[in-house]
Amino acid sequence: MNLPERVTIYEVGPRDGLQNEKAVVPVAVKAEFLTRLAATGLKVIEATSFVHPKWVPQLADAADLLAALDRAPGVRHPVLVPNERGLDRALESGVSDVAIFASATESFARRNLNRSMDEQYAMFEPVVTRAREAGLWVRAYLSMAFGDPWEGDVPVAQVAEAGRRLFDLGIHELSLGDTIGVGTAGRVQELIAAFDSPEPLAVHFHDTYGQALANTLAALQAGVTTVDSSAGGLGGCPYAESATGNLATEDLVWMLDGLGISHGVSLDALVETSVWMAERLGRPSPSRVVTARSSS
Amino acid sequence: MNLPERVTIYEVGPRDGLQNEKAVVPVAVKAEFLTRLAATGLKVIEATSFVHPKWVPQLADAADLLAALDRAPGVRHPVLVPNERGLDRALESGVSDVAIFASATESFARRNLNRSMDEQYAMFEPVVTRAREAGLWVRAYLSMAFGDPWEGDVPVAQVAEAGRRLFDLGIHELSLGDTIGVGTAGRVQELIAAFDSPEPLAVHFHDTYGQALANTLAALQAGVTTVDSSAGGLGGCPYAESATGNLATEDLVWMLDGLGISHGVSLDALVETSVWMAERLGRPSPSRVVTARSSS
Repeated sequence: MNLPERVTIYEVGPRDGLQNEKAVVPVAVKAEFLTRLAATGLKVIEATSFVHPKWVPQLADAADLLAALDRAPGVRHPVLVPNERGLDRALESGVSDVAIFASATESFARRNLNRSMDEQYAMFEPVVTRAREAGLWVRAYLSMAFGDPWEGDVPVAQVAEAGRRLFDLGIHELSLGDTIGVGTAGRVQELIAAFDSPEPLAVHFHDTYGQALANTLAALQAGVTTVDSSAGGLGGCPYAESATGNLATEDLVWMLDGLGISHGVSLDALVETSVWMAERLGRPSPSRVVTARSSS
Repeated sequence: MNLPERVTIYEVGPRDGLQNEKAVVPVAVKAEFLTRLAATGLKVIEATSFVHPKWVPQLADAADLLAALDRAPGVRHPVLVPNERGLDRALESGVSDVAIFASATESFARRNLNRSMDEQYAMFEPVVTRAREAGLWVRAYLSMAFGDPWEGDVPVAQVAEAGRRLFDLGIHELSLGDTIGVGTAGRVQELIAAFDSPEPLAVHFHDTYGQALANTLAALQAGVTTVDSSAGGLGGCPYAESATGNLATEDLVWMLDGLGISHGVSLDALVETSVWMAERLGRPSPSRVVTARSSS
């Protein structure tokens, strides 16, 4: 198998996971979750979102959380910024890494952003420009990059074109999101091949149809070296039907360990953290590894 | 990706699934399950086991089930036979396909068969010889082919040697079983490469650590064209710690459909069957596809 020697795990549990919890997790618990995740060896941990609190009340405490955050050396904590107002708030909190979120389909752009696809680029252009001027690292998520609940299959060319427009704005990294988890391994490789290079790409898989880890394997074979995952498999998407949890970081780490791919994360510490968080949330982790490790 | 055009799904739910249920499923329900599975397009459906009822009371009705079975044309129904006595009972029931089950480790051979590895081949030799003389097709399972709860990692050379000894007995197909679900994709390909040809090999993955579908993808890339799976993800192994369900047939079918690999099975009919069976068992299917499809 043609595989990379090293993979960067982009941990999304504190943001993509917790924004989908019905209960609002106290800021002190969130801060401890972030501290514990950093102690596992994770180097990129998406901390929170500066989306308007009206839309994501679960993360309304973004500024408080960042103020309370015990920043570990060498650990990056990107935050989601939907627009210029979000960027302003993020800059006030002193962040150094931000992520915008775009849609690969008109239907989801309309529903999630209340904009057309063209309008989304116009909205993001000053965000990316100002973020770069401020010296920030900028990621873009591209949602519905495989399928869309309203449009069905999303053509590779359409996704690649959306990605190119985001790169043209000046982003550093593009995360290809299978928001509803319908994609399969062949399509993953086709989509990656539609870009000039796999290097600035990341993959973001949801396990709705059980494909997340197989798709990750396919992406690694296609040269991708950044993989999004969520500690304990927390997460989903509140605005998309039938979306379930993200790929569990533990299940990813198990595979990477077996493949001899470096990642720097302690599986034991990660399982312990996910068990701790599951206790706070009052329900078991959907991660298979967490389940196997904590029941034995 | 180097992938086969066609895959044979070897359905193990009625045997590997139901033998792990605490409740004994009535023979009429089992017969209907088999009929429904055949109607989905599955061509190989392991029906039951002639293991002594003392050890697997869930399948004590093997002869009654086969007598009640509505045999669909072109569908094979292998049955498990542990020894000559099991073969006698299977032959009395008029079967045409049997499967023996061997261990790749001394520890599991001792625990599951009460024999050393050498003794297991001696036990299987007359079973395979007589089965072939009777014109039967013979599969062997090789359990603990990746890891073992007592011995840890199981070396590729050891598994390949055990497989060779089973082929030397005259078996037609060898199913490499990751009984405790610890294997990862690279090891899967290494193990397959240790055999002369992937053609008579099958893979049998459990999803204990979330690796089953990624491992299947790796096996397909290595040339394997027969994949074991269990409708709705039923199953496990009662004699091995921390073993959870088999790869769900629905999750496999979703991937094969996405990859454009023929398999002949209707996903809708399969999901309907697994939902029906889950209702009989009184608990939801662990298959991600079944969950997504039946909740939407």
